[in-house]
Amino acid sequence: MAGNSFGRILRLTTFGESHGVGLGCVLDGCPAGLELCEADIQCDLDRRKPGQGPTATKRKEADRVQILSGVFEGRTTGTPIALYIANEDQRSRDYGNLAEIFRPGQADWGYFCKYGDVRDYRGGGRASGRETAARVAAGAIARKLLARQGISVLAACVALGGIAIEPDAIDMDGALERPYFAASDDAPARWDAVVAEARKAGDTLGGIVRIVARNVPAGLGEPVFDKLEALLAHAIMSVGAVKGFEVGEGFGAAGLRGSQNNDPLLPGPLGGAAGSGGDARFASNHAGGILGGISSGQEIVLRAAVKPIASIAQEQQTIDKQGNATKIVIGGRHDLAAIPRIIPVLSAMTALTLADALLLQKRMEPAG
Amino acid sequence: MAGNSFGRILRLTTFGESHGVGLGCVLDGCPAGLELCEADIQCDLDRRKPGQGPTATKRKEADRVQILSGVFEGRTTGTPIALYIANEDQRSRDYGNLAEIFRPGQADWGYFCKYGDVRDYRGGGRASGRETAARVAAGAIARKLLARQGISVLAACVALGGIAIEPDAIDMDGALERPYFAASDDAPARWDAVVAEARKAGDTLGGIVRIVARNVPAGLGEPVFDKLEALLAHAIMSVGAVKGFEVGEGFGAAGLRGSQNNDPLLPGPLGGAAGSGGDARFASNHAGGILGGISSGQEIVLRAAVKPIASIAQEQQTIDKQGNATKIVIGGRHDLAAIPRIIPVLSAMTALTLADALLLQKRMEPAG
Amino acid sequence: MAGNSFGRILRLTTFGESHGVGLGCVLDGCPAGLELCEADIQCDLDRRKPGQGPTATKRKEADRVQILSGVFEGRTTGTPIALYIANEDQRSRDYGNLAEIFRPGQADWGYFCKYGDVRDYRGGGRASGRETAARVAAGAIARKLLARQGISVLAACVALGGIAIEPDAIDMDGALERPYFAASDDAPARWDAVVAEARKAGDTLGGIVRIVARNVPAGLGEPVFDKLEALLAHAIMSVGAVKGFEVGEGFGAAGLRGSQNNDPLLPGPLGGAAGSGGDARFASNHAGGILGGISSGQEIVLRAAVKPIASIAQEQQTIDKQGNATKIVIGGRHDLAAIPRIIPVLSAMTALTLADALLLQKRMEPAG
Amino acid sequence: MAGNSFGRILRLTTFGESHGVGLGCVLDGCPAGLELCEADIQCDLDRRKPGQGPTATKRKEADRVQILSGVFEGRTTGTPIALYIANEDQRSRDYGNLAEIFRPGQADWGYFCKYGDVRDYRGGGRASGRETAARVAAGAIARKLLARQGISVLAACVALGGIAIEPDAIDMDGALERPYFAASDDAPARWDAVVAEARKAGDTLGGIVRIVARNVPAGLGEPVFDKLEALLAHAIMSVGAVKGFEVGEGFGAAGLRGSQNNDPLLPGPLGGAAGSGGDARFASNHAGGILGGISSGQEIVLRAAVKPIASIAQEQQTIDKQGNATKIVIGGRHDLAAIPRIIPVLSAMTALTLADALLLQKRMEPAG
Repeated sequence: MAGNSFGRILRLTTFGESHGVGLGCVLDGCPAGLELCEADIQCDLDRRKPGQGPTATKRKEADRVQILSGVFEGRTTGTPIALYIANEDQRSRDYGNLAEIFRPGQADWGYFCKYGDVRDYRGGGRASGRETAARVAAGAIARKLLARQGISVLAACVALGGIAIEPDAIDMDGALERPYFAASDDAPARWDAVVAEARKAGDTLGGIVRIVARNVPAGLGEPVFDKLEALLAHAIMSVGAVKGFEVGEGFGAAGLRGSQNNDPLLPGPLGGAAGSGGDARFASNHAGGILGGISSGQEIVLRAAVKPIASIAQEQQTIDKQGNATKIVIGGRHDLAAIPRIIPVLSAMTALTLADALLLQKRMEPAG
Repeated sequence: MAGNSFGRILRLTTFGESHGVGLGCVLDGCPAGLELCEADIQCDLDRRKPGQGPTATKRKEADRVQILSGVFEGRTTGTPIALYIANEDQRSRDYGNLAEIFRPGQADWGYFCKYGDVRDYRGGGRASGRETAARVAAGAIARKLLARQGISVLAACVALGGIAIEPDAIDMDGALERPYFAASDDAPARWDAVVAEARKAGDTLGGIVRIVARNVPAGLGEPVFDKLEALLAHAIMSVGAVKGFEVGEGFGAAGLRGSQNNDPLLPGPLGGAAGSGGDARFASNHAGGILGGISSGQEIVLRAAVKPIASIAQEQQTIDKQGNATKIVIGGRHDLAAIPRIIPVLSAMTALTLADALLLQKRMEPAG
Repeated sequence: MAGNSFGRILRLTTFGESHGVGLGCVLDGCPAGLELCEADIQCDLDRRKPGQGPTATKRKEADRVQILSGVFEGRTTGTPIALYIANEDQRSRDYGNLAEIFRPGQADWGYFCKYGDVRDYRGGGRASGRETAARVAAGAIARKLLARQGISVLAACVALGGIAIEPDAIDMDGALERPYFAASDDAPARWDAVVAEARKAGDTLGGIVRIVARNVPAGLGEPVFDKLEALLAHAIMSVGAVKGFEVGEGFGAAGLRGSQNNDPLLPGPLGGAAGSGGDARFASNHAGGILGGISSGQEIVLRAAVKPIASIAQEQQTIDKQGNATKIVIGGRHDLAAIPRIIPVLSAMTALTLADALLLQKRMEPAG
Repeated sequence: MAGNSFGRILRLTTFGESHGVGLGCVLDGCPAGLELCEADIQCDLDRRKPGQGPTATKRKEADRVQILSGVFEGRTTGTPIALYIANEDQRSRDYGNLAEIFRPGQADWGYFCKYGDVRDYRGGGRASGRETAARVAAGAIARKLLARQGISVLAACVALGGIAIEPDAIDMDGALERPYFAASDDAPARWDAVVAEARKAGDTLGGIVRIVARNVPAGLGEPVFDKLEALLAHAIMSVGAVKGFEVGEGFGAAGLRGSQNNDPLLPGPLGGAAGSGGDARFASNHAGGILGGISSGQEIVLRAAVKPIASIAQEQQTIDKQGNATKIVIGGRHDLAAIPRIIPVLSAMTALTLADALLLQKRMEPAG
């Protein structure tokens, strides 16, 4: 209930603070028999690693994952998989007056109101983006479960600092190889300019991430409160810095007519009762792959709005724990945008949600 | 797990199909001692009633709610509150070939893929918007729980058919008295024109709903997976026809700089450890009232994108249960837009989410 | 969280008070395609009906169940199944001073401490055994789900008023046809004598119920906190009047040696990876059909201790809501023992637990 | 859903195998502000340590607990508390043919049926009693939460190898200082004899543990499926080797008359609406401190039946993974009885259950 767990059949619990001993997670409900080793996980984790890409600071964290349980002789055993990442650099540091003031746009004020005066202020504590390393690690396992069914999840940046890629120019497939995990070849150059300008101004940038899941079988998601898009929205909006979520046409659908927004079904063999059919089944995909809360067999298409990072280099007005006005200049090494590091996180949350829905659906199949 | 329940401490379970015997819900976890009668609930339910407003069809459903349990001598007892709404008009009807074909943009295909050949196709069955009547009924109880703490939830239409109210012109307070539950006095006249045009074309419209919650104490929401915005996104996206969700600046935040998006804190007395402070505490509210997943004491501001209703009067291409191409013209009486009837539903889901977070927070208070 | 729900995949929520409008339940998670009609449920419900058997009072309640949702054309649709039983006799009655005093051995004091002064005291309100009618109704559906896999649940009385059936004489199969749902043909005559004596003394009796589940496949239950015996204990101990629970040898195992209590495995083909083998696989069944929290394929054997009914006809000492001493003589029509009416309830709870474990196990099967 | 978690508000998730890298747990939902250090936990853990007491083997495991998260400057922060115990002795060993055969009375067969051929057979893997070290560690935190309200949990051995302490001779308070955590001063000497005899015979012993919780406020537990005794039964029966559970008179109640079993209430001031009153409020405590599923303010009294350890030194008949008959002699160092090491585990599970119920009750208090 304290909200550090996510999922129903495949259930993830994360723990750890940014500058504590370490952080990690327990992933419960992974079926026995999945081949798994640390390298499978490290690979995804490295994509979230700091110090990479044009918007990054130059910190260096190795983020080596260790499997503590649940794997035996290279395969999962069906018992909980605990993953651990030690925080390597725990020297006592000077945190200045971070314990005493509330940084604008950060979780400081929220934590103070919720938990009172006991707050691990070091590097953001539990509210730090570092918590998401555990999600990415678990997401790598979810991704392996999905891959067995041929399902893949791709995420890419489609807008940064107000400069968007045209819908027609979006190419998801090569994103992991491009700077910013960009959804087109030519976007990075345009974004470099706005990044340089923001860096000079001591400011930060937001952007938009597009996520697609391919080959998702029809029938996932529950029809009322646990509609697939509701579960995905929960997952995506649980990532710090995300301020908006869309499926299919999203806010654009509000301006369409029904005749424009409906996706006609096309003739063809239906396969099994819970058969799929994929994109060939429909003339279009305004819905984003979900009908009535249930996957339709089409590509699932999501978008997430990412706010600019709150830690700007400019002086800001704020208050201290006595309620007195004060100024703050946030030093230290901070990324200029949550993009691209947030992209593997959003991808992981999508994979975890779909793997959970897939495992749950197994038992929902109509009675023989 | 089948997803017909929502909430943790205050937990709602709905049941019933559009053309079955009746529909209803069980609301578990409501504290003892709340004054409650059927009229308290009927009042909200009447706002969702069909046959009202410019976008409505002319159907007539009474939707009388009955309290079956959990209330004794006018007060809740702490036991489950069961609410029931009989479906009044259950004569056998001619459902044409609805059992045999999949209507574009509807849940038909999803249900078929998930549940196989057993599907209550009558009037949309469980996927019908009628299910939301149970949510509105339960939401009325949540609203009473919130009102005891001075918390209110308001929802209003801010865009219809592509015609939006300017941000500066938005006035939430009078919305319940206006056609379309509009957020300004002059919007209805502009919307009447686009509605008339769509009706003539046999088409339907989408729109955007804005929701605000006032006087929410700081400290609600859990910091990781159950961030308050994640719970609210889950709640709002679980309503059929909603395709997008925003908190605060939403997608707009993606184009802002950190220096523009951060909300400076203003000096003043802090009150208790979990003290609030409301809007006076901040110089702006780009965050939408949530910081680090936790309510900040400011007004919570959400937006939901509502797609155009799928049941259009035009002929559409689709397939039947054998996978053969066919045409469909949806007859019967259908609304032209989910707005305004969806607005009390979104308001109810917001109230249920906040009441649940409020009850949960009680036990999260820091140890003495 | 308020505890009116049970189960994970197959989840039951009950509602209603003894002398309210009616009572019922929502059973969520039943797979689509199960044939189901009201008569299937009524049959089990009639076994719990008051006014039957040697320990019963002469009340007459029809307890007609009505299916409100989730079934279409005689089959379940995968949506929530709501069941309702109207309380037929709701005339205003004279409840004497029941609102003002606490009956010894009843829930009155507990409810008062928990919920404060708002308590539906009429006929025990929510704490009445009447709540279990909803469990029996839902249990009938669970039983149908189990029957499809060949699994059956039997329950019978093995001791009443201190007079026990010898282990060797226990015959579970004919119990439903015997008075007291007795586990032997000759027990009822012996129990008649002790019942007559207790009735004369204005007193009540306790007893012991034995429950067996046959043909349960190996592999059900989760190995740590949700061991199958832990789930069954939760289920059985949640029935009012049950004070003890045993699996297999139970308390008797505390006095055995390991060499006596271990069940040797016998040679024979193993079948599939999750293959069963039943009782033929083991030389004995001291374990009661569960090993390491997981069903072994053997018969599951449970025992429940049932206390004597608290409503005795003798004058008792108690206190009123001011804390003052007072006497109470409980009038009205009360059973002399929870047996036999509690037996269908224990059977239903066992069936619900096993059906839930069965549906959950579907997705735990080792990865291909 | 895979059952490695327990609790609702205070939720424990354990992980780890007997001979893996290490084991541990995440305790989520502990309120902020509780003073906590590793020594607080180690103290309880040392009571479960192997190599102690008359029934123990001579293994030596240090079981040093490490707090990985959730504590800052000596106090809990409200974020998840991760605890870790490294397995110190992980050299590659000779596990003989443990991978190939099923030991009678052990979880081997159950795991094989559930998870298939992938099973960490080393030292029992996940099914080992070692998993309970994590429960004891978390239980120490629960105990600290309870102590703040003056609540204490005591557990003691009341029977071993068939030799029971007379009810009148039971003294719970000194148990932790006595061999076997015995409930009387003179029992250990009698038990020494039966232990010596069993050891000589290469056999093992069972016993009975009594648990009492003092100063539990009235009002904990939920009245239907989550009755306090149902939650406690779930907790206690989830510990391996436990085969029976009783509250209050337990199975003894089945032989009592209502007039004997009812606990009369005694006059005296009632205190607040949810006021307690403790044992002074009742003339007796046959109920064991729970009425209608809700704590009454009296001492909570439980009993657990513990089976003899399955790993006996005698040759046993069993089968291998091909279903062929084989013999097994279990070597290695094994305890002769789960008592006394299981006693801190049962105490921990009781403390976790009560702390969870206490935190949940906070939000159930009647509305003002």
